[in-house]
Amino acid sequence: MTNLTLALLQLPVGADVSLNVRRAVEGITQLKAENPELQLAILPESFNAPYGVEYFAKYAESIPDGATCRALSRLALQLGLYIIGGSIVERDAGKLYNTCTVWAPNGSLIGKHRKIHLFTMNIEAAHGGGVQFDEGAALTAGSELTVVKIGQHKVGIGICHDKRFEELARIYRNLGCSMLVYPSAFCICQGPMHWELLQRARATDNQLFVVTCSPARDNMSGYVAYGHSMIVDPWARVQREAGEGCEFIVEQIDFDMVEQVRRQIPIHQQRRTDVYAKARADS
Amino acid sequence: MTNLTLALLQLPVGADVSLNVRRAVEGITQLKAENPELQLAILPESFNAPYGVEYFAKYAESIPDGATCRALSRLALQLGLYIIGGSIVERDAGKLYNTCTVWAPNGSLIGKHRKIHLFTMNIEAAHGGGVQFDEGAALTAGSELTVVKIGQHKVGIGICHDKRFEELARIYRNLGCSMLVYPSAFCICQGPMHWELLQRARATDNQLFVVTCSPARDNMSGYVAYGHSMIVDPWARVQREAGEGCEFIVEQIDFDMVEQVRRQIPIHQQRRTDVYAKARADS
Repeated sequence: MTNLTLALLQLPVGADVSLNVRRAVEGITQLKAENPELQLAILPESFNAPYGVEYFAKYAESIPDGATCRALSRLALQLGLYIIGGSIVERDAGKLYNTCTVWAPNGSLIGKHRKIHLFTMNIEAAHGGGVQFDEGAALTAGSELTVVKIGQHKVGIGICHDKRFEELARIYRNLGCSMLVYPSAFCICQGPMHWELLQRARATDNQLFVVTCSPARDNMSGYVAYGHSMIVDPWARVQREAGEGCEFIVEQIDFDMVEQVRRQIPIHQQRRTDVYAKARADS
Repeated sequence: MTNLTLALLQLPVGADVSLNVRRAVEGITQLKAENPELQLAILPESFNAPYGVEYFAKYAESIPDGATCRALSRLALQLGLYIIGGSIVERDAGKLYNTCTVWAPNGSLIGKHRKIHLFTMNIEAAHGGGVQFDEGAALTAGSELTVVKIGQHKVGIGICHDKRFEELARIYRNLGCSMLVYPSAFCICQGPMHWELLQRARATDNQLFVVTCSPARDNMSGYVAYGHSMIVDPWARVQREAGEGCEFIVEQIDFDMVEQVRRQIPIHQQRRTDVYAKARADS
């Protein structure tokens, strides 16, 4: 297949875990019923629980035997599709991680990405209200890249703040990825400045699809997510974009476009790894 | 100084070298007369000669003793300012390079950047007219990074296509640069897609100023430059942008902004060089 039909579920997230998970399950079920060609569903960061340092321990689950994972595994098998399960807080050996699980159509766990770059920010009020946040106060960072195969296509996984680090995306590209997926919950002060820019930057530098999935915006919550879940194509064009509220997007993407742009603007072959290696050594 | 006043000269470029150089000299002289605070003038890529594989050998000069370099050196000394001299085709030991020279207020050559990534492109007609180009047919690529000091600020130099390579910008950032300058002549099919995006991407990933200077657009020339010379600030906002025709921009930039964004979004300290090194070794 060079085409892939995928869905982004920009879901509202509240304090009730079972309601949050049920919304995700019902949403994906509905989209698959309406779109039998659907092959991949993508959920937001922290889709099963409110996002905030004070909530992480309370809502943590184990992977793969926690209730949220069991629901996603069952759903993937039942509907016969891939699920990139946004993120949940994972508890393992006394530590907490912000973790994305990826499920195959046979219900098996084929990827588990622990957020590598924990979110730390001290935006001052001059920039849209200001926000201070430090995930590291409660979470442990992952230390492994995660590449999964969706059909025949390699997909690199990152979570939210991971998107800011172009070196991670570069390695995924070098590993042969043709799509990057970042379940994300940018705050509303970063969002207008950098949300679209970062996605388009990763897309044009690495000539691949970049997909984000955010929770719906809820101005009454303690941490207000930006929304604007988005699919950016390898030419760095915004192919689809959600608004701010609860919204589902179903879209077919064409992986032939990856080869088209790589042939027409052959930057990957032009990288001067000799120069970079020498300069890094000198610096 | 935390402020720097700089000028971008988006000049027309024709077949007459002495006219092209005279326009640059007169333009900078005029801007300095009108703006005594001016400290740095920036010229476009290939500002002294038409751009095209068939022209490179004909218009090549030696550095620093060719006529164009002598004019820039004299001008820097006479006006007491820095000049980032766009680029010219340099002839050295039988080879040709696309080279940017940087001149200090005492007239001395403080930097010489040979374009590291030669421009190769095969854009098909679907994307704005199409263009095929291969600088490598006539030019030799440089293999050295170029960091100059403008006052107390480290500035990394790239030329046009160098801007597409985020790894180069990353190294400049790691070397302590607070501004990147790319004399450039993007074609009109790449420009609308990627010109602004690439500058803003480099600015937000590396949290520094990014400045480009293009020739003015001339729809009658063999290679039509995009124009849109631009200053992007470390928040990735477009601070100033030229149109398409002959246009001079004079702007004061505030290097305090570099420290502000780096403090508020502290991504440089959060880079996971341990993870990147391991993943690169495995890939």
